[in-house]
Amino acid sequence: VRYIDAFNHFFPKRYFDALLESPSGAKDIGKRVRGIPALFDLDQRLRVVEQFENYAQVLSHGLPPVERLFPADKSPEMARVANDGLAEIVAKNPKHFVGYSALLPMNAPEAAAMEAERVLKNGANAIQLATNANGAPIDEKHFWPIYEVIEKSGRPILLHPSRTRQMPDYPTETYSKYEICSVLGWPYETGVTLSRMRTTARCSRA
Amino acid sequence: VRYIDAFNHFFPKRYFDALLESPSGAKDIGKRVRGIPALFDLDQRLRVVEQFENYAQVLSHGLPPVERLFPADKSPEMARVANDGLAEIVAKNPKHFVGYSALLPMNAPEAAAMEAERVLKNGANAIQLATNANGAPIDEKHFWPIYEVIEKSGRPILLHPSRTRQMPDYPTETYSKYEICSVLGWPYETGVTLSRMRTTARCSRA
Repeated sequence: VRYIDAFNHFFPKRYFDALLESPSGAKDIGKRVRGIPALFDLDQRLRVVEQFENYAQVLSHGLPPVERLFPADKSPEMARVANDGLAEIVAKNPKHFVGYSALLPMNAPEAAAMEAERVLKNGANAIQLATNANGAPIDEKHFWPIYEVIEKSGRPILLHPSRTRQMPDYPTETYSKYEICSVLGWPYETGVTLSRMRTTARCSRA
Repeated sequence: VRYIDAFNHFFPKRYFDALLESPSGAKDIGKRVRGIPALFDLDQRLRVVEQFENYAQVLSHGLPPVERLFPADKSPEMARVANDGLAEIVAKNPKHFVGYSALLPMNAPEAAAMEAERVLKNGANAIQLATNANGAPIDEKHFWPIYEVIEKSGRPILLHPSRTRQMPDYPTETYSKYEICSVLGWPYETGVTLSRMRTTARCSRA
């Protein structure tokens, strides 16, 4: 393998089936991904990867974030299903997939820290976080134990922009118009999240 | 003159005095500008400009926007005071100041269109608008007559970013932390405003 793509979404089957049945999975991004079979059909995906020589992928989960799909009493279990699903695909197809990043149930912070511990021990190459946790900034104090676990592992966090139309660009409006939420809002929120995490970390250590 | 700066703030005296007496002028940006005499003291400003050879400025108004300073029954009058103030300074100091951009009372859209008509006839070189009008997007339909006036004149709009701490970056918060509202929020809102104006204009003509 000479070329490795480091941020390639794929939905493992058990997790994708649960996503389709959840209320949020039926709309927005959930609706969009269903139109792209290579995102959830492993045979189709393998054919795509095989078109390129000396090429492999690091798999990661697609939107919506698990905490938007499932309530806090269900998201920890679904996170395990999602992460074990990717781990299994990677184990069975080492030539095509050289690793994966795991997601965490951010609406259940304690369970999220435990899941981080579990997947990093099991060989996850990175943790993928959305740039907001159901609308909240991810530098809030109850998330800090998660970062302690990740920091100890030495492995990276992949940030996935996740602003939705329900985050308006003006206080006088109720939704973001013209897909501005993603086209401009995604790079914006990624920058905001990085600034917040760096500054909050610096302030908390000072 | 060989070098012209096109976006240089200056507060004419009568307008600056009124700004200092308004409730919003006493805080945030209003507080900040008071620490920079060259922004409101003409003698100091002329000395700054004279330090450079073959150099002149196009004057424009500084923040806060007039509609944030004065209610709709007062802002049209204060806009005239502000614009006539810059026009007079330019007329009396043509070597240092080669033109000016005018502001509009955006909380009084009909008066704003009339003021645009008046200042563009009087020789204003541009119109300066803030990227939001007291929080509202400036592509709202009741602002369109303003753009018709400006379009006929052939002169440009200068956009001034104006997001404040009171526009939070996350729906779970009430204010923007760490000056993100300006450092990242200003370029973001400028992009959002340009996208909105282009897209709304295209849709309304389709």
